[in-house]
Amino acid sequence: MSELSARGFSVDEYQQRLARTQRAMAAQGIDALLLTTEADIRYYSGFLTQFWQSPARPWFLVLPAAGKPVAVIPGIGELCMRRTWIEDIRCWSSPDPHDDGVSLLIDTLRECLGEAGRLGLQMGAETSLRMPLASYEAVRAGLARTSVVDATSIVQAQQQVKSAAEIARITFACQAVSRAFDRLPEIAAAGDSERTIFQRFKHECLDQGVDDVCYLVGATAADGYRDIISPPSDRIVAQGDVLILDTGCTHDGYFCDFDRNFAFGKVDQATSDAYSRVHESIDAALDLARPGVTCAQLYQCMQSVLATKTDTTDSGNVGRMGHGLGMQLTETPSITHFDQTEMQPGMVMTLEPGMAYGDGRIMVHEENIVITDDGCQLLTQRAAAKIPLI
Amino acid sequence: MSELSARGFSVDEYQQRLARTQRAMAAQGIDALLLTTEADIRYYSGFLTQFWQSPARPWFLVLPAAGKPVAVIPGIGELCMRRTWIEDIRCWSSPDPHDDGVSLLIDTLRECLGEAGRLGLQMGAETSLRMPLASYEAVRAGLARTSVVDATSIVQAQQQVKSAAEIARITFACQAVSRAFDRLPEIAAAGDSERTIFQRFKHECLDQGVDDVCYLVGATAADGYRDIISPPSDRIVAQGDVLILDTGCTHDGYFCDFDRNFAFGKVDQATSDAYSRVHESIDAALDLARPGVTCAQLYQCMQSVLATKTDTTDSGNVGRMGHGLGMQLTETPSITHFDQTEMQPGMVMTLEPGMAYGDGRIMVHEENIVITDDGCQLLTQRAAAKIPLI
Repeated sequence: MSELSARGFSVDEYQQRLARTQRAMAAQGIDALLLTTEADIRYYSGFLTQFWQSPARPWFLVLPAAGKPVAVIPGIGELCMRRTWIEDIRCWSSPDPHDDGVSLLIDTLRECLGEAGRLGLQMGAETSLRMPLASYEAVRAGLARTSVVDATSIVQAQQQVKSAAEIARITFACQAVSRAFDRLPEIAAAGDSERTIFQRFKHECLDQGVDDVCYLVGATAADGYRDIISPPSDRIVAQGDVLILDTGCTHDGYFCDFDRNFAFGKVDQATSDAYSRVHESIDAALDLARPGVTCAQLYQCMQSVLATKTDTTDSGNVGRMGHGLGMQLTETPSITHFDQTEMQPGMVMTLEPGMAYGDGRIMVHEENIVITDDGCQLLTQRAAAKIPLI
Repeated sequence: MSELSARGFSVDEYQQRLARTQRAMAAQGIDALLLTTEADIRYYSGFLTQFWQSPARPWFLVLPAAGKPVAVIPGIGELCMRRTWIEDIRCWSSPDPHDDGVSLLIDTLRECLGEAGRLGLQMGAETSLRMPLASYEAVRAGLARTSVVDATSIVQAQQQVKSAAEIARITFACQAVSRAFDRLPEIAAAGDSERTIFQRFKHECLDQGVDDVCYLVGATAADGYRDIISPPSDRIVAQGDVLILDTGCTHDGYFCDFDRNFAFGKVDQATSDAYSRVHESIDAALDLARPGVTCAQLYQCMQSVLATKTDTTDSGNVGRMGHGLGMQLTETPSITHFDQTEMQPGMVMTLEPGMAYGDGRIMVHEENIVITDDGCQLLTQRAAAKIPLI
């Protein structure tokens, strides 16, 4: 599976994504769904480009109640979109200071909505509207008799369950990065700067076959780190330091997201114990994860391993112990005490328990799994049971 | 300048950014500015992390009419934010399904706005609101007597003019990538796949010292390309192909953004002529660019070189011939026929003329410049006057 090199998805796959979404739209009486973000537009169209790095232009995909999606996009994207399965591609010359796609979008939506239809929009947690707010208000004014309803759950529920082809892509990224982490003791040493180690690791991930190293954060610190989302500094790594690297690399637009911890030369007992504890909590989650188990149950399962009467434990302010994973570094659902989402076959999740120990230090572990018919399967190479020494 | 290794900015620099912005706020009677995007929050705080890759959590920075910015952020970011010059950091445990920062943000804004103040928000072109729409509506409802005004131009105008420290970072990225492009003939050959060439180029950019290769698009095609925003394919490059690589790499959070064209073994006359034409159009823009010249004048200047009576010329649907550059791959202003923004010393711009030729082929060139007191200065190593053969 790690040798996969196929790119793109079959038209059949897009048809299935669309059909399931349209059934959910019908159940809620939604006449059209407006999508504005990179991930959502790519999910239903296959439109894959890093051009989204530029905030200059808005892009739209409209899912009607029946029939194929309609793209309403800047002309610069037309040829790239024409390579997808989308046929109805409506372009304007962007940027346009007077009407940057607004009237074309209104016209397109009106075709789907009629005079007083229901427009679905992602408005809930973990979403945002990627278009100027003033343009959104102009679209709303142009569709005065349209009611807007929150379609967050429709799109998120659809995207949570991955196809075999999607899982293969995530697996490829997970395996490539696992091999890169295996090589870390050969490319990092006390005396190197954090920045040097991060850069060598990026090279290694590319060498192992990922397309891009989109996300690499971490830290080094004597006897344990306190912050896990920062970029590298010029700090020189010393004996006794603990290193965490947390990375999201992509293959064909799909992410892995996991971390690894290492200690240089020696490790203090508290750190070693914390490492083992979070490692055990993932073992417990791997045993539990199967269809029907909820995110909240996975959270409680990991938390129960981390917490004992004599410990000060919290999750290091991470706020959750894992999340969905796919076209984005983090997706729904969240492994929290309150998320009642049930696992289903095909869901790809991170297990990411974290605990505080000692004087404000934290220890975070992360693995990626897919839910199977009767359990779960690791997509990453399982981290060592004891913290590796470099 | 290319050896710069300093990271971060002085507190003095942030104070100046804030002071200028607060003066502009005062002129428009704005009592508080709400910022939600990575670039805007980083610009005023120095908060630099790739954690923004995760869409799970909203982040807020509030600029009051007087005094320092206030951060309203998920707890996971607290330590990273504490390393910046921001002192008032208010955190909540995110994700929270019932109140994901909304009430904390309302309370913070109310301190700045009183009962009926004016809240500035970026609503115009090239902006978006990075928070769930439902949360935004809840904030609006919680500040019922607050009027919301569009502050797009305040923030964009402030960010358009770069400090010496910002220019140094962009220069570093431009010079590193210029060196990587110089090496391209050594790392790309007919017989390689597009994907192989792209990956080798990423390695090369990292080797030359950039932090990340955030953006790399391009194409190869016999006798010239038609699309410039797509990812690489498995296509094998052949003699007579034209290659364009367009990249945005970062140094300390600042981008370069430029492209280079190459031909493998031989080049047809039409492509060679088109290359020379766009190259000349940049020469003309380099001669013209100085304080007081408008974007529209730069556009007309480049367009006049590209267009002759016997040519079919358009801009390949790019819609503009350059743009601002800095913390984002593309920033305002846009070099279009309608943008009347005047150049000022310290503005960093891309010059990016494109023309269609032959049967739908396009040729796009790009250089990065900074406007000086009496002209402009290239930040990139100028492309060869004739298309390089590999």
